[in-house]
Amino acid sequence: MIKAKIVGAGGYGGVGLLELLLGHPEADAVELVDIDNAGTPIANLYPHLKSFTDLVITDSASEDVDVVFMATPDGVGMTLASDELEKGAKVIDYSGDFRFNTPEAYSEYASRIGLDTDHRAEALLKEAVYGLPELHRKEIVSDTRVIGNPGCFAVSCILGLSPALKNSLIESDGIICDCKTGVSGAGKNPSPAFHYPARYDNMNAYKLAGHQHVCEIERELGILAKADIKVTFTSQVVPVCRGIMSTLYGSMRESVSESDVVEAYQTFYSDDNFVRVFGSDVSVGSMDVRGTNYCNLVVSVDARTGKLRVVSYIDNLVKGQAGSALQNMNLLFDLPETAGLSSPGRYP
Amino acid sequence: MIKAKIVGAGGYGGVGLLELLLGHPEADAVELVDIDNAGTPIANLYPHLKSFTDLVITDSASEDVDVVFMATPDGVGMTLASDELEKGAKVIDYSGDFRFNTPEAYSEYASRIGLDTDHRAEALLKEAVYGLPELHRKEIVSDTRVIGNPGCFAVSCILGLSPALKNSLIESDGIICDCKTGVSGAGKNPSPAFHYPARYDNMNAYKLAGHQHVCEIERELGILAKADIKVTFTSQVVPVCRGIMSTLYGSMRESVSESDVVEAYQTFYSDDNFVRVFGSDVSVGSMDVRGTNYCNLVVSVDARTGKLRVVSYIDNLVKGQAGSALQNMNLLFDLPETAGLSSPGRYP
Amino acid sequence: MIKAKIVGAGGYGGVGLLELLLGHPEADAVELVDIDNAGTPIANLYPHLKSFTDLVITDSASEDVDVVFMATPDGVGMTLASDELEKGAKVIDYSGDFRFNTPEAYSEYASRIGLDTDHRAEALLKEAVYGLPELHRKEIVSDTRVIGNPGCFAVSCILGLSPALKNSLIESDGIICDCKTGVSGAGKNPSPAFHYPARYDNMNAYKLAGHQHVCEIERELGILAKADIKVTFTSQVVPVCRGIMSTLYGSMRESVSESDVVEAYQTFYSDDNFVRVFGSDVSVGSMDVRGTNYCNLVVSVDARTGKLRVVSYIDNLVKGQAGSALQNMNLLFDLPETAGLSSPGRYP
Amino acid sequence: MIKAKIVGAGGYGGVGLLELLLGHPEADAVELVDIDNAGTPIANLYPHLKSFTDLVITDSASEDVDVVFMATPDGVGMTLASDELEKGAKVIDYSGDFRFNTPEAYSEYASRIGLDTDHRAEALLKEAVYGLPELHRKEIVSDTRVIGNPGCFAVSCILGLSPALKNSLIESDGIICDCKTGVSGAGKNPSPAFHYPARYDNMNAYKLAGHQHVCEIERELGILAKADIKVTFTSQVVPVCRGIMSTLYGSMRESVSESDVVEAYQTFYSDDNFVRVFGSDVSVGSMDVRGTNYCNLVVSVDARTGKLRVVSYIDNLVKGQAGSALQNMNLLFDLPETAGLSSPGRYP
Repeated sequence: MIKAKIVGAGGYGGVGLLELLLGHPEADAVELVDIDNAGTPIANLYPHLKSFTDLVITDSASEDVDVVFMATPDGVGMTLASDELEKGAKVIDYSGDFRFNTPEAYSEYASRIGLDTDHRAEALLKEAVYGLPELHRKEIVSDTRVIGNPGCFAVSCILGLSPALKNSLIESDGIICDCKTGVSGAGKNPSPAFHYPARYDNMNAYKLAGHQHVCEIERELGILAKADIKVTFTSQVVPVCRGIMSTLYGSMRESVSESDVVEAYQTFYSDDNFVRVFGSDVSVGSMDVRGTNYCNLVVSVDARTGKLRVVSYIDNLVKGQAGSALQNMNLLFDLPETAGLSSPGRYP
Repeated sequence: MIKAKIVGAGGYGGVGLLELLLGHPEADAVELVDIDNAGTPIANLYPHLKSFTDLVITDSASEDVDVVFMATPDGVGMTLASDELEKGAKVIDYSGDFRFNTPEAYSEYASRIGLDTDHRAEALLKEAVYGLPELHRKEIVSDTRVIGNPGCFAVSCILGLSPALKNSLIESDGIICDCKTGVSGAGKNPSPAFHYPARYDNMNAYKLAGHQHVCEIERELGILAKADIKVTFTSQVVPVCRGIMSTLYGSMRESVSESDVVEAYQTFYSDDNFVRVFGSDVSVGSMDVRGTNYCNLVVSVDARTGKLRVVSYIDNLVKGQAGSALQNMNLLFDLPETAGLSSPGRYP
Repeated sequence: MIKAKIVGAGGYGGVGLLELLLGHPEADAVELVDIDNAGTPIANLYPHLKSFTDLVITDSASEDVDVVFMATPDGVGMTLASDELEKGAKVIDYSGDFRFNTPEAYSEYASRIGLDTDHRAEALLKEAVYGLPELHRKEIVSDTRVIGNPGCFAVSCILGLSPALKNSLIESDGIICDCKTGVSGAGKNPSPAFHYPARYDNMNAYKLAGHQHVCEIERELGILAKADIKVTFTSQVVPVCRGIMSTLYGSMRESVSESDVVEAYQTFYSDDNFVRVFGSDVSVGSMDVRGTNYCNLVVSVDARTGKLRVVSYIDNLVKGQAGSALQNMNLLFDLPETAGLSSPGRYP
Repeated sequence: MIKAKIVGAGGYGGVGLLELLLGHPEADAVELVDIDNAGTPIANLYPHLKSFTDLVITDSASEDVDVVFMATPDGVGMTLASDELEKGAKVIDYSGDFRFNTPEAYSEYASRIGLDTDHRAEALLKEAVYGLPELHRKEIVSDTRVIGNPGCFAVSCILGLSPALKNSLIESDGIICDCKTGVSGAGKNPSPAFHYPARYDNMNAYKLAGHQHVCEIERELGILAKADIKVTFTSQVVPVCRGIMSTLYGSMRESVSESDVVEAYQTFYSDDNFVRVFGSDVSVGSMDVRGTNYCNLVVSVDARTGKLRVVSYIDNLVKGQAGSALQNMNLLFDLPETAGLSSPGRYP
């Protein structure tokens, strides 16, 4: 069995991964680290885990493991990664710490979220792989040591636009990403904006000045389009718990029918287990991917205005976070990509 | 007192108007008509109205009144309007029946929703006024007899984009309207998509092939822009009860600062009681307009991509329906525009 | 106009009262006090109030007013009341500070919530009136200076059981109060239990060791029953925003039909504007009283087991708090009891 | 592999079982029957199942299987059971059809829900076993042919009260079951009471004249208490999707400490995998059992009033329905009781 450690185990990203590992046939969580909850059995912090695990949270990593999941905020993974790598573990980091390959790219990202623009483990940046298997599967192999797990909005936008840009279906400028997230995306810590009475019947746009996930979206789409890409990005929050619905717009280069676009998308993702493509006649909602690692894409063409529109649905905590991380682990250890990710969600 | 009759009183649009009329200083609801609930006291159908009104629903209009609100689906108002007009009443219709001034324009609209494209009261089209006071206040006067109350999505989009087009801040092509509505917009009748377990943690896009409100949006914006306007429009539903959040995108003609755009918007709406304009530094949500006739606009400029983005918030049942209808009535009878519309919502 | 001051204006209880005062024909809020938000316009803190009030929150009370509402936690009102009374104002306090007439009774209450059991304005206790008009209307008159506004659960339970005990329909022992509250009852401050993701699909009992509202329930019911009353009380929270549903059980003294009980209840409340009584054949829910000062009671008799069951519905923020406070103000100033409280809620 | 057929596969009870069977190591769903959706792939009806199953719904049962789950309303199982039994299948029925062992007991139940009081497969009643493994495990063995799966409210109440009655901790009269269910308990068909706008901020009691689950509760508790038991039962619905919280009250026979009661409960359930017992100091909510087959019991003693209070939490669709059904199947085929039921829920 692969031995896994979760740092930041007390947050939604950590506990979501633990849930998945409990059902994984080839991997076990053996250590949970979280400075805020050290000494507490995880099942006390998350009572739904009672009878499923006896693990007690520790305040610092001690176990030698095969893989470390850094379910931690920006800045933590870069301080802990080297030690773990030296001990022979692979590192999968949830934050932006390892999503960029150059100090300059990291610096631009860090400045957007008000962090120190110097990276504290600069030497690792070059080898880190951006952990979106649908685009980087060939680089996520047994020699890979460091994965920068993608941002939740980024997953939904990149998967929704990649086939269009790779196949030159849309112009590289004028792309719009109108993204709506469920509240769990804000994490576990209570705050006025996510207090139940303030949130239950409320929706709003936020970070209108610019969201940090834009950096990785533009980088990845730019590689595919072989062009400099700048997207207009809007982050919005609505009162669902889990789910991202990103509505993506681009200008068609030439008139192509919806069915041809659907086919191009299906071809692009023909080797991918976790992406489904639909035309606009199929009814799809965020609940259809809730609790799973799937991304559902609904493709439509507005012939009147010459726009391609793709609605991209994921569960922000699974494909947008813990599920992608586990998918990456499977690739790193040469396991079936779907291992531990093959349960349907619960409906309703 | 102005005597008002509500046809279609049993739906959300009817009862919402009744609630407002109960607090109006100069108007009274004197008759409620609804074929589905004839003979029932409205307070039995809507128990929150017990002790507030004794009105019993009737199956056909009999009272002579000053104003008739047709809170009815498409096709009803056009069959009943002439009779009421002959009896001297004014008619305010919630549906698309009187939103268009020519049979051709109506026909295009009707074909989008699968209705007979012939209008059954064609002679009235020419005199009907599109009931968005912020744009048509001067035409909504005591001589006016027929008002076509605007669609809920249309209100949010038109108010959000009018100043930009009037002032030539944005190009007339490439406009995108990404609209999210609360569930009450679907009305009172239960259906699988709005069954609580199917909806509470779900969001989805719908009518991707085209929404009927696009017709009036394009017509109104085209008048302001003096150009042929086509918008890409996406309707989406999220689990809030009341509220529309429309995120509107246009390409800036030239580089203008956010504060200048805010100022242009504030100037445009300087005579309007019910539109508030904010810059992107102000936190605004749909809950801030819930239960009121306000439209809150948050204006931002994405200098990186040259896009103007306006987030437009309304309560779909008030400014998007009954509130606008009452505002129109106030204008028709030369009352203060805010009469009956001056209560704040309840928070939380 | 009556001049009113709200201390603790920044909380749900304060802002709810302000909303009501904005629509009151005879009273105005002239000062808002809140140490946490001093210097902030209330409409910045609660943006739904923009255009409705320009009041700026202050950090200490300075205005001479006719009535002070202490929308403050336990312990605050008792330190501020004397000063205000000396200046000639009446005081209506939301907390437990003035719900008890003796130091001993207060002390028992205070010990339940871990507060200092000494009352800091002991001299005022004797004259304070328990502000439930349905039971104490005759004591809430122009000479009265201090009102202890009742607890939200207490309002629902006392109104639901008073007629039964007054008329000796049920035994004085074995009474059970099974109470469910909406989340707004926990107030404005975010906490883990009321964080949206933790709450949206969750319900739970809390304070199983004993809730402080029991003291006033037992006192009031004991007066009516002329007996020592002890109730078994369970507080539970469910994911609605506003509303209390208290299901109350007592053992019938003798077999009485449901319709006779309904009649006894209706007689008991025949002079009350804000209590409605229904039999078990009428469909009633918490939404029917949302946003209003009403209490809806559904009375049923389980003949098989000899139990009376009353389901009592209120809006915890209106009849359970700000609405009762305003009703008390109306009585103190000899105004119609319904002044400022005569708007229906908004549905849905 | 055990071959299973689900009749009534299109409802929540059917699809919930299918989800569980997809993860069961020893059983497979091989046929789905539902007259309302015949010819439709189940994954079209429930898009979250796409990629997980290709099964197409049929309109009548044709496959020979080892076990048939009748996820059908009252009256269906009794007409289909004999045929299936003759073909050698075991039958597990979700409705009240096989919860009673005598025509008389069935008749009383049927009359409560307005059904024909004659049972159409009377001969089978005697051999049918009430499928609550915690009480009837010894009768659910390989010879058993017919299981009457218990009602959701009944599971929560019986599990919550059995240890108290078995150990004579409480009196057999005066028991109160105050039950709150999530909306999924009402099933898949839309109706006005469960339309999102009417339900999202609403809670109410219903069926005050008597709920049919009372029959089985009184029967089971009576057996344990060796006494005639009548309970006062209140069914209430609150806006959660999944979950039942039943608050159960009984009069203590003599003064026993909470910790002793907790111990008695833990002893009673010491051989049960799916029941957890807590004291009142532990924080428990319905979300802690969501998506699992667990029942969480919180035991407390109100020494002031001499009442025992047990708060019983289950997921109405799992332990209250499909999970219990699968647990019964495991017992019938001598599999580990937890097979297919050992995944934690997803949080949040």
